[in-house]
Amino acid sequence: MEEIKVAVEATTFTAHNLWMMVATILVFIMHLGFASLEAGLTQSKNTVNILFKNTIIPAMGLLTYALVGFSLMYPGGDFEGGFFGFAGLGLNPGADGMTSKYNPAYTYWTDFIFQGMFAATAATIVSGAVAERIKLFSFLIFSTLYVGICYPIAGMWHWGGGFLAANGFYDFAGSTIVHSVGGWGALAGAILLGPRAGKYRKGRIMPIPGHSMPLATVGVFLLWFGWFGFNGGSVLSADPAAVSLVFVTTSLAAAAGAFGAFITSYAMFKTNDLSMVLNGVLGGLVAITAGADQMTVPESVGIGFVGGALVVVAVVFFDRMKIDDPVGAISVHLVGGIWGTLAVGIFGAKAGSTQVVSQLMGIGMVGVFCFAFAFILFYTLKVTLGIRVDEEEEHEGLDVSEHDMHAYPDFVTTSK
Amino acid sequence: MEEIKVAVEATTFTAHNLWMMVATILVFIMHLGFASLEAGLTQSKNTVNILFKNTIIPAMGLLTYALVGFSLMYPGGDFEGGFFGFAGLGLNPGADGMTSKYNPAYTYWTDFIFQGMFAATAATIVSGAVAERIKLFSFLIFSTLYVGICYPIAGMWHWGGGFLAANGFYDFAGSTIVHSVGGWGALAGAILLGPRAGKYRKGRIMPIPGHSMPLATVGVFLLWFGWFGFNGGSVLSADPAAVSLVFVTTSLAAAAGAFGAFITSYAMFKTNDLSMVLNGVLGGLVAITAGADQMTVPESVGIGFVGGALVVVAVVFFDRMKIDDPVGAISVHLVGGIWGTLAVGIFGAKAGSTQVVSQLMGIGMVGVFCFAFAFILFYTLKVTLGIRVDEEEEHEGLDVSEHDMHAYPDFVTTSK
Amino acid sequence: MEEIKVAVEATTFTAHNLWMMVATILVFIMHLGFASLEAGLTQSKNTVNILFKNTIIPAMGLLTYALVGFSLMYPGGDFEGGFFGFAGLGLNPGADGMTSKYNPAYTYWTDFIFQGMFAATAATIVSGAVAERIKLFSFLIFSTLYVGICYPIAGMWHWGGGFLAANGFYDFAGSTIVHSVGGWGALAGAILLGPRAGKYRKGRIMPIPGHSMPLATVGVFLLWFGWFGFNGGSVLSADPAAVSLVFVTTSLAAAAGAFGAFITSYAMFKTNDLSMVLNGVLGGLVAITAGADQMTVPESVGIGFVGGALVVVAVVFFDRMKIDDPVGAISVHLVGGIWGTLAVGIFGAKAGSTQVVSQLMGIGMVGVFCFAFAFILFYTLKVTLGIRVDEEEEHEGLDVSEHDMHAYPDFVTTSK
Repeated sequence: MEEIKVAVEATTFTAHNLWMMVATILVFIMHLGFASLEAGLTQSKNTVNILFKNTIIPAMGLLTYALVGFSLMYPGGDFEGGFFGFAGLGLNPGADGMTSKYNPAYTYWTDFIFQGMFAATAATIVSGAVAERIKLFSFLIFSTLYVGICYPIAGMWHWGGGFLAANGFYDFAGSTIVHSVGGWGALAGAILLGPRAGKYRKGRIMPIPGHSMPLATVGVFLLWFGWFGFNGGSVLSADPAAVSLVFVTTSLAAAAGAFGAFITSYAMFKTNDLSMVLNGVLGGLVAITAGADQMTVPESVGIGFVGGALVVVAVVFFDRMKIDDPVGAISVHLVGGIWGTLAVGIFGAKAGSTQVVSQLMGIGMVGVFCFAFAFILFYTLKVTLGIRVDEEEEHEGLDVSEHDMHAYPDFVTTSK
Repeated sequence: MEEIKVAVEATTFTAHNLWMMVATILVFIMHLGFASLEAGLTQSKNTVNILFKNTIIPAMGLLTYALVGFSLMYPGGDFEGGFFGFAGLGLNPGADGMTSKYNPAYTYWTDFIFQGMFAATAATIVSGAVAERIKLFSFLIFSTLYVGICYPIAGMWHWGGGFLAANGFYDFAGSTIVHSVGGWGALAGAILLGPRAGKYRKGRIMPIPGHSMPLATVGVFLLWFGWFGFNGGSVLSADPAAVSLVFVTTSLAAAAGAFGAFITSYAMFKTNDLSMVLNGVLGGLVAITAGADQMTVPESVGIGFVGGALVVVAVVFFDRMKIDDPVGAISVHLVGGIWGTLAVGIFGAKAGSTQVVSQLMGIGMVGVFCFAFAFILFYTLKVTLGIRVDEEEEHEGLDVSEHDMHAYPDFVTTSK
Repeated sequence: MEEIKVAVEATTFTAHNLWMMVATILVFIMHLGFASLEAGLTQSKNTVNILFKNTIIPAMGLLTYALVGFSLMYPGGDFEGGFFGFAGLGLNPGADGMTSKYNPAYTYWTDFIFQGMFAATAATIVSGAVAERIKLFSFLIFSTLYVGICYPIAGMWHWGGGFLAANGFYDFAGSTIVHSVGGWGALAGAILLGPRAGKYRKGRIMPIPGHSMPLATVGVFLLWFGWFGFNGGSVLSADPAAVSLVFVTTSLAAAAGAFGAFITSYAMFKTNDLSMVLNGVLGGLVAITAGADQMTVPESVGIGFVGGALVVVAVVFFDRMKIDDPVGAISVHLVGGIWGTLAVGIFGAKAGSTQVVSQLMGIGMVGVFCFAFAFILFYTLKVTLGIRVDEEEEHEGLDVSEHDMHAYPDFVTTSK
């Protein structure tokens, strides 16, 4: 009898752990989604540079998360309710790696690798906003510190049992804790770098179209694909009702986001704008992420629709502010993240004014910390190593100046 | 004791539901497969248009399936054996979303989202056949009605317990119920639109080559990848013997389809035709879909081989009929779907003349309904809004006329 | 009570089998990874040829593995400790396909399809090294015999219970048994074919850059993605501690491989070389494969780092030897495979001089057999059908001479 009970528990554990493994793989492939999207929405003379960054960043993210990030984000019980904690360098599994301190449904190794796949996202989001003009080496330094230190500390505040968790803030899978963290870094970088040459001329906004819409589309579909793991894995078990509800809310918000951006951009520009629809899908996904476990079907559709519509409005707004974000990363991840986090106070099981206050506090505290961290770091790099390539390099493209190669050497491109 | 029994049942449910979640994700990514394949096999001046359609269609498919499709396809017991039923607007889960009315192996939400991912496929198949000349807005109206109404009604006839199910018709994962439904719509659209300008000139068939074979290849591999969920998920549980057999029959049919098309096209054209081999893989996949749960290894190879060979023959046939299908969608999905559905009467556990009659009845009834639905709908659009862009727009490409942008603005293309 | 016990066992079996199904799908998509990587790293005039080969090879691999490969690789008990065995033509499941002879955790069908997805890899690796100059038909004959006969025999020596297994050789997921098998074939082919026209001129190495870095990057990410199934599935069950450890070691080795290649190539070439970083990821993955189940975190990082660094050194070495390998397949799969296999004797649970000897014996025996098999086979083809296209065909590109089509007909390419 006891033996059977043990066997049942082992199998249950195996099933939950299995889902988390699959979710890990799905979050991993989001890095290819980001790479494809960012490369597709920028010029072909900077494609190698973008692919290089987006290959090195997840690699760096995994290594730093193993070294310090995981220990900063989940420092353990002593730091509950606090702002900062550190469980020591490196990974410290039990003898067999079976014991996760925080989640009874999976192993220590699963805990690390699932969380580790999220980490690099913070820098990948920044990468899009600073594309086509940032120095590679400075960006790699920024990314390492932002992913290795800033992201896990902000994450600890909520998911690691820190003060935001203690104060009722709720962010299911990271509208704020992941996407806005990236978005604030993106905003700081875009401000300090300044716009790309020729983007704002004589009071007009000059479009600099992305070089490959198929690549951008592949990127968005891969991100949606990976989001099933990002949100679905954030259930932290294979609980059937919870995971399947998350799939429904996530998918419907993405779908509604496409329509939100489609209709808004058609109303504003009188054309069927593919890049807006693609970013609208992402806006819907970012927005539903904070409450994907507790929204009804109509609420999910509404949150996603607004998330998609807001992307269009925000893209126009930041362009008016002359904050140049080549791929719309700030509009998608920061604006969408704020909206989604607020929506948890307005819709779903937790709706209410107390929750709105908690949500605003979380948005504000994370915003102040991350924006300040990113701004100071970028500023320090600016006055030391420099963060912007020189005019000629920017004109010629970063692929030549930083990488000495072309992304498409066989094809004739329009002269730059 | 009772407690352990409950625990075992919960874990079994979790495992089955988990597989259905994974299958859902796999079917989702087929939409990227369709987008890539269709974009790759058409001209670069229409690429944005294709990507736009293939992003909006799955979004629309999920939303309409939530609103009416799911209720039309699975109206519940009262409509058993019938032609039509409707369970009411929107989704109606039980209190916890745990109870699926039709499948004890997973939740209501899983039921909806797995089925919902299939729905848009019907319109995506049509999209390929009408590419490069259809008006975007008319196509979106067609798609919404075809996916929201026609597809779920035909689906109800078999999977929703309707009259085809009652009469012994068998279609495991949708050779007829999904692929032919799409194929009939594609045929109606291609006929009513007429061929692309310059395709048939002075009695000759002029090739209009696709602009990116890598994109087309990515599409086919993603479709094969997703088919593990399409067919494997149609087991409707994680039953080990059933799912693994489906993986084997599906993969061997796809492999044999590649060789069927390779050999047939070599015999006919004396060259190693990549686009035929790619479509041959799909022809094999479509063909095995109706009986993937009950074929032996040699039967799977045979069904797939013939499916692949038929694609080549059908492509030539439709060109002779001057029915212009830029990506071969009718040959793959309609011809392959009919062949695969018939094969259930010829091979496998159900083989026999009675089954052949049932299969023919299903093929015929679905064909008459869907072709008529699509024809009337396209015809109504033709005489009202119009369905075809004007000559100049077609010449210049739909990317400019419908979307005001280029898919590859950095590259020099051959003049059009 | 007995009934519950049976139910628990069935559910456990379902969970293990489910993971192996997912792993099968992941290994499948590696074929798209190989196709994308190889196409991206070669010239656009040979892209259709590469896509054609990499579509036909997995199809052929599945069919030959069903016909003879599986029976050669897992011939059953009578051949234990031996060099060769054969269980008969075709597949022979029990009545319900539930019984796998070798693995209690999954079905016969799962056993076949998981192993079958690996098989074609051996030829796909060769494909990269012989690209841009080999005759299609000769390569298909080579691939069929190499995948159908050579690979499963070498595989039987270790995984089928043959003499290497009996002598303590250890290769967890195939650094030697899969990657080096492919690598030896690649070396034999590259030697017998000779370098591409113009590659080595007047004592200088002329770079022939790949035509699409996005395609190459997509390929590497898909390979990493698939490697979670390649290594994770090699646990042969969903054992939570084992699979999750494998995910961690595999990911960290890949990440470290990126840095190993980044730093080494920067030191050698003073530039940030994307193709080296991409191959470095693969070098790290190949290297960890032999011991992914038993390395610590620092060991995994070290093995991956060296694997990535070795790729850079090996690419330079083979170029100096005038062995022309367009995609670096020999450096990644042969050199990385040897290093990873040796590392099992140096690090991890089995470290020790006895193990080093066993590892060297395995590396040597597999190397002698596979290199000889490939060399004799390529040589026979060379003196009969010929293996190299003529100069004009090579100059014009294989897409035209072998396939009568272009990969990118809409784009203007630099004159060849």
